[in-house]
Amino acid sequence: MAVTAESVLAGDRLALSRLITQIENGVQESRATLDALFPYTGNAYLIGVTGPSGSGKSTLVNQLALKLAQAGDQRIGIIAVDPTSPFSGGALLGDRVRMSDLFANPNIFIRSMATRGALGGLARAADDAAYAMDAAGYAFILIETVGAGQSEVEIAKLAHTTIVVEAPGLGDDVQAGKAGLLEIADILVVNKSDRLGAEASARALENALALGVEINGNSDDGWQVPVLRVSALHGEGLPELVDVIYSHRRHLQDDRGWAERKNRRARSGLVRLLKESLYTAWQTQVSEDAVDEMAAKIAGGALSPEQAAKRLLET
Amino acid sequence: MAVTAESVLAGDRLALSRLITQIENGVQESRATLDALFPYTGNAYLIGVTGPSGSGKSTLVNQLALKLAQAGDQRIGIIAVDPTSPFSGGALLGDRVRMSDLFANPNIFIRSMATRGALGGLARAADDAAYAMDAAGYAFILIETVGAGQSEVEIAKLAHTTIVVEAPGLGDDVQAGKAGLLEIADILVVNKSDRLGAEASARALENALALGVEINGNSDDGWQVPVLRVSALHGEGLPELVDVIYSHRRHLQDDRGWAERKNRRARSGLVRLLKESLYTAWQTQVSEDAVDEMAAKIAGGALSPEQAAKRLLET
Repeated sequence: MAVTAESVLAGDRLALSRLITQIENGVQESRATLDALFPYTGNAYLIGVTGPSGSGKSTLVNQLALKLAQAGDQRIGIIAVDPTSPFSGGALLGDRVRMSDLFANPNIFIRSMATRGALGGLARAADDAAYAMDAAGYAFILIETVGAGQSEVEIAKLAHTTIVVEAPGLGDDVQAGKAGLLEIADILVVNKSDRLGAEASARALENALALGVEINGNSDDGWQVPVLRVSALHGEGLPELVDVIYSHRRHLQDDRGWAERKNRRARSGLVRLLKESLYTAWQTQVSEDAVDEMAAKIAGGALSPEQAAKRLLET
Repeated sequence: MAVTAESVLAGDRLALSRLITQIENGVQESRATLDALFPYTGNAYLIGVTGPSGSGKSTLVNQLALKLAQAGDQRIGIIAVDPTSPFSGGALLGDRVRMSDLFANPNIFIRSMATRGALGGLARAADDAAYAMDAAGYAFILIETVGAGQSEVEIAKLAHTTIVVEAPGLGDDVQAGKAGLLEIADILVVNKSDRLGAEASARALENALALGVEINGNSDDGWQVPVLRVSALHGEGLPELVDVIYSHRRHLQDDRGWAERKNRRARSGLVRLLKESLYTAWQTQVSEDAVDEMAAKIAGGALSPEQAAKRLLET
């Protein structure tokens, strides 16, 4: 059954939840509802939160949502993107654990997404879910991505403010992750700041920032990426984090950066959709068997992928 | 300057290295070289290694490469996929650290890849690098991916054998990751097995496997996913891991699973290439400005991404 745009706009949580389920499952009817909701989007502020496993991102996102809800008596949406959770796995469990925490709060709407399938499928679903929440009047939407994978980084960096979370004691190869994640961070958080090694982690990040500031992708707009010490579990440093988020928003608004990031997000989604649409249109003219046959030729070493693609496109 | 296929086939490491750099940078000449190499591919056995930050994947991959090289007096390639390392970051540093370890060994070729850019760009480059190493006569190619992001999981699961690495003490939200990664694992490794909590981690994985075995994507071919205790740093459990890899290879060969996985990899690469090619061909007929204009309309709430894509495709 189609979810009406009216019910979502009226703030019906069940309707929003059902719409996002339809988006996840690629139900055709959800497209028309989204199209009808679209004119009401553009007001939500998107915050991407990413970082390695074990950094306590989920706790941070939950606590941040509560603080933001209090700060402005406003509604906060959470999209927890977890591509590693299949069928039965983490997303559902996570939902349940989180529900006990946040479900009681009528100003917070939390949704885990774990759609598998084609690359880009999850990014598109998360994007559409954020538009739906936006239209439903959520003032801030927190998009939490697990890990530091390429597509998750893509999702996080389409937000207006991107927070990268680190924590002490995650092992040596976190160092490499740090280097890359610095590039997309607007705010760096060292979570679990009460733990041994937190100060060293924070200083290492500050040093890395100082070294990399000239080549940092985000620094060209004049924003100084801050490093915050937070203990989400004990509530320490959260008011400061909320302040910094508001500062960054003001910075983007003064600077037209917000419009630019909105355009960037729109363009990225549009190009993804164009690629999918072009492929779908092309598929209707070619049999699946022809694709399978070419794949077998590649596997057998008879054709390179380039050659196989060219032949298929010529027919 | 183009790298000749002959030099790669002759085992020239510098030529192979330069070819992979050209692949990473999208140098057009590398396509012709790859096409010429393609008939010589199909012999390498691909092993994907993935798992969360801090699980000690790199150490495991390095030690496994040494053991495999010894086991069969054969050449081993390593592709370390690290999308979070940009321009100056982790990959180069990682290379240097690793070189001191492995560069001396003429039977091991190690390459980090950190190409940024379009989604699929890294997957395609890693795929092509694996084909190049395959043609160059590397018997095993280890593909290490950082984190558990969607595109990294995609890369890892295109291997013939996929190893998922865990370690004790990586924090609570690793639990969620485990659930999802079980689905793609042919072999589960609890690394750092000398550490506190390793036995509990191994037992938790075994329990999860026992519960999930009926819905595990890999179990339908009759392979029982084993859980191995390994301390890569101290060399413990590595001979057993090598044995299990050989067992899995025999299992796939007996069962035609190898051919199936080869086809799956080929098909996935082919579809990715078709999407890119179709979009590139379409782009030549439409101005960038038209795409930008539509993106601005989406950002302004005037059109939904679906509506904008439809309009662009109609012109």
